[in-house]
Order: sequence, then C-alpha cells, then structure tokens
Amino acid sequence: MEALRFRDGVLEILDQRLLPFEERYLPVRDARGASEAIRDMAVRGAPAIGLCAAYAVALAAREAAAAPDAAGKLSELTGEIAAARPTAVNLRFEVEQALAALPKHPAGWYEAALRYAEGRSREQALEDAAIAQHALELFRPGMRVLTHCNTGGLATGGSGTALGAIIHAHRALGLAEVLADETRPRLQGARLTAYELQRAQVPHHLIVDGAAAHFMAQGRVDLVIVGADRIGEDGRTANKIGTYMLAVLAHHHGIPFVVAAPRSSCDTSWRDDGAIEIEERSMEEVLAPLGTRFAAQGSSAYNPAFDVTPGELVTAIVREDGLFRPPFRLR
Amino acid sequence: MEALRFRDGVLEILDQRLLPFEERYLPVRDARGASEAIRDMAVRGAPAIGLCAAYAVALAAREAAAAPDAAGKLSELTGEIAAARPTAVNLRFEVEQALAALPKHPAGWYEAALRYAEGRSREQALEDAAIAQHALELFRPGMRVLTHCNTGGLATGGSGTALGAIIHAHRALGLAEVLADETRPRLQGARLTAYELQRAQVPHHLIVDGAAAHFMAQGRVDLVIVGADRIGEDGRTANKIGTYMLAVLAHHHGIPFVVAAPRSSCDTSWRDDGAIEIEERSMEEVLAPLGTRFAAQGSSAYNPAFDVTPGELVTAIVREDGLFRPPFRLR
Repeated sequence: MEALRFRDGVLEILDQRLLPFEERYLPVRDARGASEAIRDMAVRGAPAIGLCAAYAVALAAREAAAAPDAAGKLSELTGEIAAARPTAVNLRFEVEQALAALPKHPAGWYEAALRYAEGRSREQALEDAAIAQHALELFRPGMRVLTHCNTGGLATGGSGTALGAIIHAHRALGLAEVLADETRPRLQGARLTAYELQRAQVPHHLIVDGAAAHFMAQGRVDLVIVGADRIGEDGRTANKIGTYMLAVLAHHHGIPFVVAAPRSSCDTSWRDDGAIEIEERSMEEVLAPLGTRFAAQGSSAYNPAFDVTPGELVTAIVREDGLFRPPFRLR
Repeated sequence: MEALRFRDGVLEILDQRLLPFEERYLPVRDARGASEAIRDMAVRGAPAIGLCAAYAVALAAREAAAAPDAAGKLSELTGEIAAARPTAVNLRFEVEQALAALPKHPAGWYEAALRYAEGRSREQALEDAAIAQHALELFRPGMRVLTHCNTGGLATGGSGTALGAIIHAHRALGLAEVLADETRPRLQGARLTAYELQRAQVPHHLIVDGAAAHFMAQGRVDLVIVGADRIGEDGRTANKIGTYMLAVLAHHHGIPFVVAAPRSSCDTSWRDDGAIEIEERSMEEVLAPLGTRFAAQGSSAYNPAFDVTPGELVTAIVREDGLFRPPFRLR
C-alpha cells in the first residue's frame, strides 16, 4: 500500500485513521482538503506529511493560478498547509522547497509544482532505501528489536525509516522478533506497525508502552530503533511521545538506542537552549481512544504529542547520507 | 463509595466493571455469588479481594450451618471462594483466617464469621489510615505527584494505599496536582484512579504511560508513589506492569520513588535469586482494550500483568507500621 499517490489531478491519501481494518484512499482535490488531511492525521509520519505537503502545494498552485491575486492566494493556501501540524519540521521545509521550484509566471506553477512533488516522491524512496542500507551494520542475525510508533512505508511514502530498516535487516539477516510498542494515545504501533510487520512477514509481538522496561530487564531487547520528527545539530531528537522514555530505559539497560530519519528531518538551527513547540493534542485522544470512552466524564488529560530525547542518550543516527555516532555535529 | 459493604444479611459489592460510568452495588446473597463476583472482577485489588473473601466466608457459614453435612458444605463453598482468583495470594490466606475464627458448633458459625469480617474491615481501614499518616512526611505543599494503576479505596475496601496517601496529603498539605498514568492494558488509572481523585476533589490529569518520562524531564513530577502486589525482604517490588518503568525513570531524573502497601503484601521468603511467576494474561487485553479492537486480526501481543522493581530503585516503603528507607531489611 502506498501512503499516497497522485492520479488524474487528484491526490489520493491512504486514510490511516481507518487502518488496519479498511484500506481506503481519500481523494483530495484542493489545497484545503490536503491541509485538513494532514491536520486530522489521515496521513501522518513526518516524511509522508512532507511529501503530502509537496503535492498539496501543487494543488494550491493550480487553484491560485486561476485566482485574481495569484501570488496572494498561493501564499494564503501554502501558509495553511505549512501550519497544519506544528512540530514536524519537514512540513514547512517541503512547502518552502516546493514554492522555490515554481517559475515566475502562474501559468507554469501547477506543472512545476507537480514535477517537484513527483521528484520528491522518487527521492523519498531512494532515501529510505539508503537509510535501511546504512542501518544494516547495527543489526545482527537473531536480534530482538524494539520500536515505537509507526515509521514504515505508511509514515514516509517510501519503504520507511526505522521500520523500513528493521524489515530490510530481517530480510538480510533474519531477526528473532520485533517488539512493537502499541504507542498510546493514537495506537500507531497497534494499528499500523503490526499491520506493516504482518504484511512483511516479520515475527513480532505488540506490547503496551509501559512494558518496554520489563522486556529490557529480562534481556529480551537487543536494539531500540525509532524515527524522528526533528533532529537538532547535537543529536537531540523530537519524536512521538514515549520515545524519550525508551531512550532513558535503553541507557539504563545498556541497550543501543538508534534514531533513523532522513536528512530533511534535521534542523541544525535547533540547538543550545532552543526549545521547540511541543504539539498538545486533544485530551479526547487519551480519554476516549479512537472514540471509545474509558475515563469518567469530567476527567482531564494532558496529551503532548512529542517528547525530546537529548543527544547524549542516542547511540547512533542513521540518515540517507550515512551512520553518525556521538558526539553529533549534524549538518 | 465503599468498595463493599454488608447490610441486612446481604453483601453489597460496588461493581467496578461498570465504573466510572455507573455506580451500582451488586447484591450478593450466597457464597457462590461472592466467588463469581471475585472471579469476574466486580471487585479487584488484592486487599479488597481479601476483605470480600472474609464476608464470603460468612455467607458460606450461614448456608452450611443449615445443611445436613454442615462441615462438608462449608469446606466445599470456602474452597470455591479461595480458588476464585488463583493469583491473588491473600485470597486463600483470608479464607483460612476466617475459617480459623469459627467455633465448633455450626449454630455459631455465621455470627463468628461475620464478626471476623467486620473486624478485618475495621483493621483494613486502620491500616490504610496508618499508611497515609506515615507517608505524609514524604509530601510537601504544592507537590506534583505521579501514580500508576489504582490503589485507592476501591482497591482495598479502606481508604487505599498509595492513592489513599495522596488524597490524605492533599487534604493535609495541598498538592499542586496528581498525574495519573492511564495504566494499560486494563486502564485502571483512567477508569478508577481518575474517578476516585475526582470524587476526592484532588486536581489531576490523566497521561498515557509513555508520557511519564516527558513530564519528569520537564520538572513536572516531584514524587512517584505506587502500590505493590508483593514486596521482598530487600525492597524488591512486584506491581502492575509499568511500575518498573517509573522506577527507572524516577531514578534517572532524581525523583523519589515510593511504594505504599500493607505489611501483608510483604513476602520475606522472596529474596536472593528467587524469581516469582509473572502472570501472563490474555493478549486480548492489549489487542482489544475493554473489548474494542484496535490491532489487526492476526496480531499477537505479550501481556505480562506485572513487573519487578529491584529494591535499589525504591526510595522508601510505607507500611502501616512505619516508613522504611534503604537498605531494606523488611520483616
């Protein structure tokens, strides 16, 4: 299943909110529809969001070129796309790159933007493959690997980052098994990672997020590998809530903790004391997972979508341009 | 709400399967009904199960005394009670203690058993109150406290252990807020702890289990306090899955990690290299929380019900007989 595809002028997004029970593509015909699909998480995963944004700019370019104030309209629509999710650095970056690829005259915008997006799609697939290849040196036959959230093809539009590397390593070396955190609150592990591992025929078990420490203590985890939404110059990594927990636990148990992400997730301006905005999502995701209410009416919850792992807890970072070890000086 | 009460010859059990949405007492008129309520988890929490068992013996004594073979009937019915939850160690213990309190003649059984159960109920309340009193020295006004699972009155039949201590500390000193782990897979935090904190008017927020590390890193947790299913001589603590994670995280962040439990949870024979059996519950609890399926058909999960925290990670243990600091030499 491709996370997204573009056919006959329509962006089709595999609606990940319906997985694993239904494989349905959401047809998106205009820029606002694409912004909504990103905001409402029909598509998720930083690289897939970035790719979706590139196609969304093409839709925006088509609409804007037909408007009286083409430049103003383009700016308005692409501003909305860039703001759909606050923490993923690729989103703004991809919108800027796509805009930079446009010619002066609005008549050429759509075609140029579409060409750009399709180029990004091909690049993404190559980047993912390169990440998996570089990551291979971290794996050994028979390893037990733990991962968090979903970082497979569904998250990138290619073959995936951390999960792509796991699947590649299993094919190349043979892993004993993968432990997949279910990843509350949105359960991307239970819904998406287990689905992708099953399709890829990789032996795996789901666990609740709070059980990871127990399996580490029992010697049942040899490697932790996760994706990233943003990586700073010194290796600091913003990723799905629960990632920092794994980094601390892996450190405590002497288990390698690896981050796999494309270079476009690296934000070298994020350093020193720089804080980034941590998206606080609706408390309903905690109180009523996927719409099923578990907590009492009137209960409150905090729901930070991401946490930040300091670079000192990261054993290695894998990008399409290689494998990096600390101390990190990323560019 | 009392977890259970005895009125007019009827044992009334607050049906915790319906919480937090409905507060309904299940009337139990005979020993078999009590065994069923324990087995089907209308009542849960080791101390509350023990207390329920004591009342169940009174019901069994009343039925048996009227039977032709009183002794045989009593043995049959109390055997069923003791076997209702194979893993709750104090269940068998409470049944044995209640039986030991019976006089020779069946005519006196019911009254003696009831007197025993009511004595246990008063003792339980006193133990819980003593735990809360001893724990108070660990709290400060304005603290932010994190807890896991449910350890309130619902779990003990008194005022609770760790959660009872939190509520007591809030009344005595004023806490800033409580962060309650939702506690996957069975969501006792979301369903029961939030409910008890709301009734006690303690400011609180639910968080997903994987978010605890993030809040610790942000300086938003001053104290972690949890209950225990079993405590060894050296402070090692078996408790709900996710507890060990909290202990490692608290250690990493320099936050006190406290265990509150009655002395009856201490098992001094558990020491040295002694392993205890870790109950592996149905994977459906992970794949389909409270019956709502999130993971793809064909997915597998591991579902260990508890984990073990080594004594070195425990800052203090609070029992009804005092507050203990490491190195622990519990009796």
